[in-house]
Amino acid sequence: MWLDRGLVFMSDTRTNAGVDNISTARKLFTFEKPGERFITILTSGNLATTQSVISMLEERTKAPADRSPSIMEAPSMFQVARIVGQTLREVIATTADTGQQSESTFDATLIVGGQIADGPPRLFLIYPEGNFIEAGKGTPYFQIGETKYGRPILVRAYEPEMSFEAAVKLLLVSFDSTIKANLSVGPPLDMQLYETDSCKKGISRRIAADNAYFQSISKGWGLALKKAFDSLPDVTLDE
Amino acid sequence: MWLDRGLVFMSDTRTNAGVDNISTARKLFTFEKPGERFITILTSGNLATTQSVISMLEERTKAPADRSPSIMEAPSMFQVARIVGQTLREVIATTADTGQQSESTFDATLIVGGQIADGPPRLFLIYPEGNFIEAGKGTPYFQIGETKYGRPILVRAYEPEMSFEAAVKLLLVSFDSTIKANLSVGPPLDMQLYETDSCKKGISRRIAADNAYFQSISKGWGLALKKAFDSLPDVTLDE
Repeated sequence: MWLDRGLVFMSDTRTNAGVDNISTARKLFTFEKPGERFITILTSGNLATTQSVISMLEERTKAPADRSPSIMEAPSMFQVARIVGQTLREVIATTADTGQQSESTFDATLIVGGQIADGPPRLFLIYPEGNFIEAGKGTPYFQIGETKYGRPILVRAYEPEMSFEAAVKLLLVSFDSTIKANLSVGPPLDMQLYETDSCKKGISRRIAADNAYFQSISKGWGLALKKAFDSLPDVTLDE
Repeated sequence: MWLDRGLVFMSDTRTNAGVDNISTARKLFTFEKPGERFITILTSGNLATTQSVISMLEERTKAPADRSPSIMEAPSMFQVARIVGQTLREVIATTADTGQQSESTFDATLIVGGQIADGPPRLFLIYPEGNFIEAGKGTPYFQIGETKYGRPILVRAYEPEMSFEAAVKLLLVSFDSTIKANLSVGPPLDMQLYETDSCKKGISRRIAADNAYFQSISKGWGLALKKAFDSLPDVTLDE
């Protein structure tokens, strides 16, 4: 989510290959050179694909010989998005090429956001084909994965001038709606803040299912929704 | 939606074959023999399929020679659901059989609910394969079509002892969330009530986009949601 004061990232950690094969895996990754650049990547889709993409991006930042293209060397966030997109495309193409058959596809969709010194903070949604779109005033936030249940509250409550605190609350409410409705999304949730022009990692948290604040939001939101619903006028049903 | 006091049905009327081919079509149909039976069918999916199913069901209720199986003669709601399921299955199989190729499938999913004198009110979800599941205390309502955006409020606010007025309000809020988020769902909305043991058609309405109550719900819900959101405690983000 893009805000006037920075970027807010949140992801769940549930992965599944069918309802009888559920695990927890990190889907929020950060890359940082303090004072110069800060990049966050969120992943959705096939876990083997996304882990491979992240590993390849990480390796390229470490091996000096193979350093180019590295997201830690790229001159702009646009170039970072291109590198991530190409890496994603490569991984999917390589996997699909082996002749192995799989019921689920190897597709994955990523969100890449961050800032490189002298440029503005930017936020991209990267498709399995490697191309991407950018967030702007018209589309100030992206969702990937199981997006629909949590969307209505984002549409209604998002404001660019929100505080980080309000934005985190909003994302927790959105995730909570999804978690209540869909088994493929589950806690703990990973949260990462980025403050505009800081070019370094902001506050990050892992929010467990038993986190007191998350529980108060989850219960409080249920009650607040009921109250909001009751506050609306009843329809008149006379013939 | 199944309530203690009866059944509530609501459908939108938007149909589309791509974003440049949008029309309005009825997706809520009723069959009645006052005092003996009342049946409502809601449709989603391929419009040619669902219109064909409804026409076949209607024709069979009229032609005495071809009257069996007719949903107006079936001895129980279970048999009604079986007839509707078989008809749906037949229509899909016939269409798929012609060798015509189509990008979209011919699938459709239906909701069938109502009551036949001496039996209880029953509510079924019918799959394209012709088989079906029944609503009960555990699953007291069904959604078909674009179900996800509107689900969280149903999960939170549904209660079996609700009044018809509150239930209609709930369904309007749920539809409004979907309409705000997704182009494939749009007004006018069709609403049909059925009062337990009446065995006749209850109140029905077509609710247009400019309906004053629907507009007050839509605007009021946005404001009430914001207020509910603001009423939740803010997170503390100190390191």
